[in-house]
Amino acid sequence: MVRKSAKKKRTEEYKKHIGQVPGTLVYTGKKSDKDFHLECFDYTKENIEESILLNIEDVINYKDTDSVTWINVDGLKHTDKIEAIGKQYDLHPLVLEDIVNTTQRPKIDIYDDYLFVVLKMLYYDDKENIVIEQVCLVLGKNYVLTFQESEGDVFGHIRDRLRYANGRIRGLKSDYLMYALIDAVVDNYFSIIETLGNKIEDLETELFTGNAREDINVEVQQLKREILKVRRAIFPLREIISRIEKGEHRLIYKRTITYYRDVYDHLIQVSENIDIYREMIWSLMDMYMTTISNKMNEVMKVLTIMSSIFIPLTFLAGLYGMNFKYIPELEYRYGYFVLLGVMLLMFVGLLFYFKRKKWLR
Amino acid sequence: MVRKSAKKKRTEEYKKHIGQVPGTLVYTGKKSDKDFHLECFDYTKENIEESILLNIEDVINYKDTDSVTWINVDGLKHTDKIEAIGKQYDLHPLVLEDIVNTTQRPKIDIYDDYLFVVLKMLYYDDKENIVIEQVCLVLGKNYVLTFQESEGDVFGHIRDRLRYANGRIRGLKSDYLMYALIDAVVDNYFSIIETLGNKIEDLETELFTGNAREDINVEVQQLKREILKVRRAIFPLREIISRIEKGEHRLIYKRTITYYRDVYDHLIQVSENIDIYREMIWSLMDMYMTTISNKMNEVMKVLTIMSSIFIPLTFLAGLYGMNFKYIPELEYRYGYFVLLGVMLLMFVGLLFYFKRKKWLR
Amino acid sequence: MVRKSAKKKRTEEYKKHIGQVPGTLVYTGKKSDKDFHLECFDYTKENIEESILLNIEDVINYKDTDSVTWINVDGLKHTDKIEAIGKQYDLHPLVLEDIVNTTQRPKIDIYDDYLFVVLKMLYYDDKENIVIEQVCLVLGKNYVLTFQESEGDVFGHIRDRLRYANGRIRGLKSDYLMYALIDAVVDNYFSIIETLGNKIEDLETELFTGNAREDINVEVQQLKREILKVRRAIFPLREIISRIEKGEHRLIYKRTITYYRDVYDHLIQVSENIDIYREMIWSLMDMYMTTISNKMNEVMKVLTIMSSIFIPLTFLAGLYGMNFKYIPELEYRYGYFVLLGVMLLMFVGLLFYFKRKKWLR
Amino acid sequence: MVRKSAKKKRTEEYKKHIGQVPGTLVYTGKKSDKDFHLECFDYTKENIEESILLNIEDVINYKDTDSVTWINVDGLKHTDKIEAIGKQYDLHPLVLEDIVNTTQRPKIDIYDDYLFVVLKMLYYDDKENIVIEQVCLVLGKNYVLTFQESEGDVFGHIRDRLRYANGRIRGLKSDYLMYALIDAVVDNYFSIIETLGNKIEDLETELFTGNAREDINVEVQQLKREILKVRRAIFPLREIISRIEKGEHRLIYKRTITYYRDVYDHLIQVSENIDIYREMIWSLMDMYMTTISNKMNEVMKVLTIMSSIFIPLTFLAGLYGMNFKYIPELEYRYGYFVLLGVMLLMFVGLLFYFKRKKWLR
Amino acid sequence: MVRKSAKKKRTEEYKKHIGQVPGTLVYTGKKSDKDFHLECFDYTKENIEESILLNIEDVINYKDTDSVTWINVDGLKHTDKIEAIGKQYDLHPLVLEDIVNTTQRPKIDIYDDYLFVVLKMLYYDDKENIVIEQVCLVLGKNYVLTFQESEGDVFGHIRDRLRYANGRIRGLKSDYLMYALIDAVVDNYFSIIETLGNKIEDLETELFTGNAREDINVEVQQLKREILKVRRAIFPLREIISRIEKGEHRLIYKRTITYYRDVYDHLIQVSENIDIYREMIWSLMDMYMTTISNKMNEVMKVLTIMSSIFIPLTFLAGLYGMNFKYIPELEYRYGYFVLLGVMLLMFVGLLFYFKRKKWLR
Repeated sequence: MVRKSAKKKRTEEYKKHIGQVPGTLVYTGKKSDKDFHLECFDYTKENIEESILLNIEDVINYKDTDSVTWINVDGLKHTDKIEAIGKQYDLHPLVLEDIVNTTQRPKIDIYDDYLFVVLKMLYYDDKENIVIEQVCLVLGKNYVLTFQESEGDVFGHIRDRLRYANGRIRGLKSDYLMYALIDAVVDNYFSIIETLGNKIEDLETELFTGNAREDINVEVQQLKREILKVRRAIFPLREIISRIEKGEHRLIYKRTITYYRDVYDHLIQVSENIDIYREMIWSLMDMYMTTISNKMNEVMKVLTIMSSIFIPLTFLAGLYGMNFKYIPELEYRYGYFVLLGVMLLMFVGLLFYFKRKKWLR
Repeated sequence: MVRKSAKKKRTEEYKKHIGQVPGTLVYTGKKSDKDFHLECFDYTKENIEESILLNIEDVINYKDTDSVTWINVDGLKHTDKIEAIGKQYDLHPLVLEDIVNTTQRPKIDIYDDYLFVVLKMLYYDDKENIVIEQVCLVLGKNYVLTFQESEGDVFGHIRDRLRYANGRIRGLKSDYLMYALIDAVVDNYFSIIETLGNKIEDLETELFTGNAREDINVEVQQLKREILKVRRAIFPLREIISRIEKGEHRLIYKRTITYYRDVYDHLIQVSENIDIYREMIWSLMDMYMTTISNKMNEVMKVLTIMSSIFIPLTFLAGLYGMNFKYIPELEYRYGYFVLLGVMLLMFVGLLFYFKRKKWLR
Repeated sequence: MVRKSAKKKRTEEYKKHIGQVPGTLVYTGKKSDKDFHLECFDYTKENIEESILLNIEDVINYKDTDSVTWINVDGLKHTDKIEAIGKQYDLHPLVLEDIVNTTQRPKIDIYDDYLFVVLKMLYYDDKENIVIEQVCLVLGKNYVLTFQESEGDVFGHIRDRLRYANGRIRGLKSDYLMYALIDAVVDNYFSIIETLGNKIEDLETELFTGNAREDINVEVQQLKREILKVRRAIFPLREIISRIEKGEHRLIYKRTITYYRDVYDHLIQVSENIDIYREMIWSLMDMYMTTISNKMNEVMKVLTIMSSIFIPLTFLAGLYGMNFKYIPELEYRYGYFVLLGVMLLMFVGLLFYFKRKKWLR
Repeated sequence: MVRKSAKKKRTEEYKKHIGQVPGTLVYTGKKSDKDFHLECFDYTKENIEESILLNIEDVINYKDTDSVTWINVDGLKHTDKIEAIGKQYDLHPLVLEDIVNTTQRPKIDIYDDYLFVVLKMLYYDDKENIVIEQVCLVLGKNYVLTFQESEGDVFGHIRDRLRYANGRIRGLKSDYLMYALIDAVVDNYFSIIETLGNKIEDLETELFTGNAREDINVEVQQLKREILKVRRAIFPLREIISRIEKGEHRLIYKRTITYYRDVYDHLIQVSENIDIYREMIWSLMDMYMTTISNKMNEVMKVLTIMSSIFIPLTFLAGLYGMNFKYIPELEYRYGYFVLLGVMLLMFVGLLFYFKRKKWLR
Repeated sequence: MVRKSAKKKRTEEYKKHIGQVPGTLVYTGKKSDKDFHLECFDYTKENIEESILLNIEDVINYKDTDSVTWINVDGLKHTDKIEAIGKQYDLHPLVLEDIVNTTQRPKIDIYDDYLFVVLKMLYYDDKENIVIEQVCLVLGKNYVLTFQESEGDVFGHIRDRLRYANGRIRGLKSDYLMYALIDAVVDNYFSIIETLGNKIEDLETELFTGNAREDINVEVQQLKREILKVRRAIFPLREIISRIEKGEHRLIYKRTITYYRDVYDHLIQVSENIDIYREMIWSLMDMYMTTISNKMNEVMKVLTIMSSIFIPLTFLAGLYGMNFKYIPELEYRYGYFVLLGVMLLMFVGLLFYFKRKKWLR
């Protein structure tokens, strides 16, 4: 019941959106109880300043500096604040609309002064369900803006690398920062699909050993849906990275392109794995079907063996239970024992017959 | 019976069309009882004039003005009036033929002075069936003509935005008006496929819980056909918008292209969802097949258990119902009770056997 | 038997063709008893002359005139006459070979002075089978030659439009005449696939209502083959029209290209319908399989219910039919009636059990 | 057993090949007992000289003449002789390696002075199995070399046309000769796939009439494999001819290209037929599955009818075979006949029930 | 249990990798107990020097010589040593990261001074499982570096050809050496897929003869997975060779391109075979399904025949075992024998009936 109403509500939200003036900001996600949160890293090769911005107007200070700035926004519910940030960074109204509309497909929009990238961050929640959270990136000359639905992300390592000046990150420009962020998201995909792969292997083992639960098909179907979901979140990203890697925009320096190419290779690898898992899932359904058929076969064999052996014997017994006045066999002294012998012969003969047919092991 | 004759009639209409001189106007839709209706919006950034035109000749007044004009025509049955409008706006005879031929595939035809776009508006009727209505748009320098089969559409919000000068619409040209109209149609697709998705989820839940009705396969098939129908109506639109977005025609200003790109992204999203639903429908059929097989398995098990237990027992009973003169066991004082004991042992033994085979829970 | 020998014969004809000098004319069709027939329309905007040519040499007179000429040839068996016409119009030997080889795939060959188009005309014969007849068109500067296997075609309307100067046809060039001829063939495809669609819907209704005949799978298969056949005849035409429409040849005037584009759109529409029918046919087979399985399930249920109820009862009856000396129950006054009561209880209990399992309605 | 060892041997030969210096000649075919055979046609428009060359050194005489030369080599086992010929015609070592490696995929290699084409000749052997023989062609300025595994080919007609100056062949260059040879190979494909088509139709008829043998699935599978085999031999040829037809090499004159285009069209036709046969084969398996299910259904019905009718009757009979002291019905004068009547009623009632369910015809 | 923990560990390793600074070297393979091993061939047409390098610093000596050097590194676990080599040859950090990350997909990265190629070497281990080992190649002006997980490879023949100056290899540059190495890897693919093909044929024979084990479906599934695995390892290589063959890099001389084209042809051949095997595997599952169904059919027939014959006979016997006071038949002198006769007739009649239905052979 609860589920139904949840569905209805989502439809309502969709409908609310229809007919709106383009550029109107409507938050379509489910995390409407999350706080707004503004995190800022401003750094050069030498220095780094990390701060939590409480005043939205402060973001403008970081726009035209020479240092590189990463502003991370959590909490898309607060559309008015998103709009305020957007205005200060001269973002197109459609960009802002896309940021808060969390049902977006991953995409890249190229504007004169900035690149706008939508992608999906995947993680498992407490109940082992895959959660898909939208992350939007805006890459400007000296800044990267990121927008997330709620706190908690896969960027922890990057914050550390910034703070402690690990690797090249502090010495390079905003395009490298965006690479590092995307790379973190993509790296995380690997652990997601690894878990999917493990689930498939477990199901496979269960089916191969013949001890499969009867409702394993439900599980297979749910896994299939999960893979469809992950696929849809990941696949469009390939094209996006491919466009960045081709160096279509002056904000991406030649030096960084090698890194984007590396991300692209990773994505291809993830995609291939997903497609292989998909094919394996289909095979699992096939396996399940043959397993069912084999089980039915076994059931039928037991029935057939039992029936074929005892029905004729019962007939014989019935024959000599008849009350005819004159049945010569009944009069014989050892008639009963002779009949028992005949029955035993039939019994053994039929057993032998089924043995030869390999219905009995 | 009624259905058959309806089908025959449609075939007749097809045939009527065959061999006609190209450019002959033949209405092929089903809504032949609808009235003709001519609605006109003429606006600049400052003013707007809304009117119902009763005289077809009046449409010419809006052709070469500086203001932007939207003329909406309802009722394609009236081919003579369509032709009259077409003449005044110098439309190619094939364009007019396509407007009234409601079996068109979505398409775009590029002429020197105008763009001609055919697309499909989808909505649910009272019986929850999807209705597909053709909408034709002609985009000229300062005007947009729209042609619909009958009154009632998804453009209500746009009329309001025009009247109350919401958003940018009044300040921009006819190409933005066309964008707004197409966007309204595409936005509506989302609610259609949302409903399809809900139907699929309901069927899935039914199948997963094992309480599926026996004729659920009929429903699955009908859903499959609905998706095929929707797919055919929506998919060709992608290519159309893609061509507009590439800026192939001087009537589309650079400024508006961002908006068309946004529509394009939405269409891709809709298309992907449709394809996922399609795959899920196929999985549903698979699920249904395994469900049937599982049920059959259960039926067979009951039969096998019952038969395998009682047929041997019946044989034993028959054995001692025989009338042989000399059957020693019958003479024993407690022969009957010994046999009952043996039978009980067999009964328990077989139960245990089936339990171990997991045929009994 | 007859069918086999027909098949053998066709193979023979194939083989006859193998190893021939390229350019040798071998008629490969089945209509070898048809007469030769030469029909000629010569027209300008003002005049039209319609004639039956008896003398093949006369065709040369129409080659270099300013008027537009349509020469229609029926009866490909007469390869010598085809060759004579070919010589007078300077056709390449391979073109002539293709005209009489009716197993051609639809194609277009572009020569310097003319276009050669092979396409397939579809119609139903008396027994409701689809017949595929090859039509070849040669488009020259002022003439169109058409070659058909036998009399009877879909060009009746075009003859009338020529005679009575309907529409634009008399005022335009040979490229428009070819368009009109191809358009007539394509228009006819619509009624063919409409009939196919009706057949599919009928089968679907039969399967949905559960009253399907047992041999409905044979019908489904035959429909599948028909669709394959039609598909093969129609699909290659798309590419042909696409090449013409791109204006690759100077014989096609810019003015006419809009019309060819229109034919192209129609072809896409036909193709899409065919592919949807194809998918629906596959679904029909699925439906049929589930129908069979459901029926089997029902049969099994009846068997299981009957057996599970009566086999234990029969055992009980057998038990008290035994001839042991001492069976206390037999001595009781109302033993029989108590047993009857027990049996009734078991009967009702099992009925109730199967009712709860929903095996009984 | 024999088969296994044959397989092993092939693997051995593969392995022998691995790690060889590129350009080493290793014959990988099965026809190692065939003789070496060198056949030569040297011709101009006026003269033709046909000879069997016994001395390999003689081939060099034909290399730089103005006349066109066709040298046909049978017997690839003799790798030393192949190498000798190759040296005299300056063939690349990889070309020679490919000639004797009969597991090649059809391909074209373009060298500066010659074209190297590998294709597959198909024919049926005595046991109606398809045999695939590799034919290699080298087209030089004035010569064509052909290499076959063994004597016997489809070029008989071409030899005759050369000898008796049929058609254009003697008047044209080596590129036309190569066309004629390829055309002969392709023409032969038609009869191969015709036979395949006949086999499919026979199986289909068998399945449609319901008299299919039980092992028909084995035959269907073998046909499927044959089609895969033929497909692999034929499909790559399309690309080869397509490259020749695009006139990529100066050895192919413009005049001949029309002829190559014709071969290309034939290949497309063959390929389409193969793909249709493939789809039909899959349908056959579907048909077979439904046939099995239908048969099982019939078996189950017989069982169910027999059991459902006689099990309750047997119960009744058992009831009155009990030995209770007091069973009132047994005492009635006509008890037996009343019971017989009841049984008859039940019998007829059940028959009627199954009739209405359409399980009985 | 062991297997599970192994899986877990792999996931751990993945995770360790996530969030690392790009360019960090993490070995992801399973062969962490292997020794480090540095093998060096330095040669010109005249001389060759073969050595085992113990000191990593020595590798720099071979970098800028005129002779061609092949340095082969075994043991990727030793990431520090890999890094040292990488520094001396100026390899990009991402290249080094890829070398030790053995889950890479085959790929080519083109840098200014060198080409970096990742490919997969396949071989069977002792338990007949396919092992996939990653091989990385770096092609520089005068050197080729190869990196393998462990000792043992398919390059034995190449070492011999270098030592004994077999073929062209000593006379040509490093690009030919890389070709020779790749060719050796690809050649080995043939024997791998040959083995796969043999396995498929064996399974097919088993299924065709009807003697298939019941768990053959498990084997079919495992084969399917193996093919997926091989496919993923081999397919991307095609694109890599294709890019090399197009001569995109100045390190590849025109003379060598013919050889790379040859490798490409081999790869296409391998790929086609894999795809055919894949299709055959799917057919095997189909075959298996029909085999199961056929077996079930047979079981059902036996059950039906036995039941249908003896159940009615048992009923008759039961009828005359009733204890009615007055059953006239029981009194007849030969009643028993008459009944036996009737039973025999029924028995024969039913046998005949099943014979005609072809359920009995």
